Amino acid sequence: MLAEIITIGDEILIGQIVDTNSAWMGQQLNKIGIKVKQISSVSDDREHILNALAEASKRADVILITGGLGPTKDDITKKTLAEYFNVGLMENQDALDNVERIFKRYNRPLLEVNKQQALVPENCEVILNENGTAPGMWFNHHGKIYMSMPGVPFEMMYMMEGQVLPKLQATIELPVIVHKTILTAGEGESFLAETIADIEDSLPPHIKLAYLPKLGQVRLRLSGFGDDARALEKEVEHYASQIIERVKHVVVAEEDLPIEKAILNQMEQRGLTLSTAESCTGGLISHMLTQHLGSSKVFLGGAVSYSNDLKEDILDVKHETLQQFGAVSEQTAVEMAEGALKNFKSDYAVAVTGIAGPDGGTPDKPVGTVWIAVVSANNRQIKKFTYVGKRLQNIERSAISAFTMLNNLLKA
Amino acid sequence: MLAEIITIGDEILIGQIVDTNSAWMGQQLNKIGIKVKQISSVSDDREHILNALAEASKRADVILITGGLGPTKDDITKKTLAEYFNVGLMENQDALDNVERIFKRYNRPLLEVNKQQALVPENCEVILNENGTAPGMWFNHHGKIYMSMPGVPFEMMYMMEGQVLPKLQATIELPVIVHKTILTAGEGESFLAETIADIEDSLPPHIKLAYLPKLGQVRLRLSGFGDDARALEKEVEHYASQIIERVKHVVVAEEDLPIEKAILNQMEQRGLTLSTAESCTGGLISHMLTQHLGSSKVFLGGAVSYSNDLKEDILDVKHETLQQFGAVSEQTAVEMAEGALKNFKSDYAVAVTGIAGPDGGTPDKPVGTVWIAVVSANNRQIKKFTYVGKRLQNIERSAISAFTMLNNLLKA
Repeated sequence: MLAEIITIGDEILIGQIVDTNSAWMGQQLNKIGIKVKQISSVSDDREHILNALAEASKRADVILITGGLGPTKDDITKKTLAEYFNVGLMENQDALDNVERIFKRYNRPLLEVNKQQALVPENCEVILNENGTAPGMWFNHHGKIYMSMPGVPFEMMYMMEGQVLPKLQATIELPVIVHKTILTAGEGESFLAETIADIEDSLPPHIKLAYLPKLGQVRLRLSGFGDDARALEKEVEHYASQIIERVKHVVVAEEDLPIEKAILNQMEQRGLTLSTAESCTGGLISHMLTQHLGSSKVFLGGAVSYSNDLKEDILDVKHETLQQFGAVSEQTAVEMAEGALKNFKSDYAVAVTGIAGPDGGTPDKPVGTVWIAVVSANNRQIKKFTYVGKRLQNIERSAISAFTMLNNLLKA
Repeated sequence: MLAEIITIGDEILIGQIVDTNSAWMGQQLNKIGIKVKQISSVSDDREHILNALAEASKRADVILITGGLGPTKDDITKKTLAEYFNVGLMENQDALDNVERIFKRYNRPLLEVNKQQALVPENCEVILNENGTAPGMWFNHHGKIYMSMPGVPFEMMYMMEGQVLPKLQATIELPVIVHKTILTAGEGESFLAETIADIEDSLPPHIKLAYLPKLGQVRLRLSGFGDDARALEKEVEHYASQIIERVKHVVVAEEDLPIEKAILNQMEQRGLTLSTAESCTGGLISHMLTQHLGSSKVFLGGAVSYSNDLKEDILDVKHETLQQFGAVSEQTAVEMAEGALKNFKSDYAVAVTGIAGPDGGTPDKPVGTVWIAVVSANNRQIKKFTYVGKRLQNIERSAISAFTMLNNLLKA
């Protein structure tokens, strides 16, 4: 079963926004067994949209369209869809009720232009938009499914999760698919592949293993295809547990989570708290943690100690240590972590100090040199890394390494 | 002059990576007067690529291709391009020298598979890749230009900036385009439009004004089209200075910069230092600042005080203040900022405390309530915001508001 995604909007083509919708939709469709064949971004232009629809219908069975539905867009997508299907537009009562409900909620007067949001092509089935005024539109046409959604990411996501994906699963005969993801950190893709080669070779043809690497992490995803969901789940679990057993020293989570969220979950379950002392990562570790709901149960806070003075003042790094070994050193990293542990009264603390670049390097401490220390009351790990990326890459890699080390210390 | 971007790679279609390349390329092409007509993401599949090339050549004059060039990709793009142009592959000495140079730099043995990176279609002109082993390939074919580049963003970006864009400008007769961007923060698009309506109306037809809104900021971009670069620059500057004069209370920068970088530049020029006290923004403000080279000249560091204890311990927020007014209050925000100013010895300090959500709200302090304080030795600004977004949106908006307020205080 093949799908095509068409995103409509000049703002994508001029690079004003990055098309994050398509990647998310690709992930969701894959999970239910629909493969995306092509993603096309086209202009807010009648002829161009008609052309894209015709081309997509030759390649795919399901065509998902986002964008071009706002009241200021002059409803180009809607009109063009009606033209493509050769039907007229009609007012839909449910869609109109939704528009009125939303305007009432925000206490705003309803303008004529807003009412037009409830006009839809006659042959469509309206999919309610709980987060906005533009309705979703579902079409069955010559054996193909077309689904038009707003381009605002969270409106589209809610519509997909709540309605479109279940409706696709109910409408199309799709294979039963079971996914199981194992998040690992600290070992490369090729090392993992070698370590689990015999397990991979023993997989039956209906179970596939994918390596999904990203910044010091590799996600191992088993996907099983079949008819019997229960039996398949059991089978996938069987191979997953073999893999987990084999590489357990690098496993961070047995599900698909961001690494920092996996650590927050572990620490919350064990009632542990965390603080941070960041120099070259400059707050990224804190930011990654605090973007997740519930992080406050684990994360108490930390210091971003960019200057040496702050390392001394808030983290109690000794003046002599900075003098003798420098800010980017094993000794400073350890004192930063121990200072955080003590001053911020947490069970664990991570400290990062390094040279993110592009300047600030020296012959014995080149750009990309980073020291990371992770400590608890009775345990610690200290490591030196040498990255070769650009500034932001070095910062991001340092943060991931810090989480990897913290995961290891939590296991120790 | 129209362009089409083709990105090749299953990793885009399954949503493993977000296609950020296309947006960046769209921006760059627009700046030199080339409009992107369509962006197509296609699979690593010979027939699909051939089809995409044929379709693109009907729509556009310049076809930019990224991806599918790595040694593990089985060189699908290269082989398919040779097939499309009906030519063979040959070894290119410059490309081979480059591969050898890179392997020498990393002290790694050169494998046969790596040497194959130097094989290119006979009709191409090689564009050197200084950051990787896959060469860029430039083709002139039936009056159209095709340019194939690696998919790794920083390899592609260097190649575009250093070689491809200048070569396009030298090869194709493009209009002279002069852009001037003014970054504003703190006022909405419609307010700005009203305020400068008469200036906008007075623009000659060859100068356009675009409003580019993003998270509490609006970039005003004037684009002039013509033949005489000097005269055009002067003319665009004339209108830009009219606009700047009119909206100067919200201008952050007279060039296209991230807001935090504009502030770092201003503060560096004036020899001022900054520290932060972040609660609900959890390190994002620090991270935004420290991602920029040279931030250490201005930014000393700060505290991420997620827990109340840390607000008291590092920022000297009074226990009674937290008891009486709560962590999310005007009083706590001010004490956090003043604590940072004093303890971290900076000229300016910003503090943010709020409820990012989705839980933690109360009837009188609903989710999205955020207090921000910006202080210097003899000046201060305190403001309450009420956001209605999701957690991460609320965090990002808070950070932008903090920078907006800091910009205002710097002007005061």
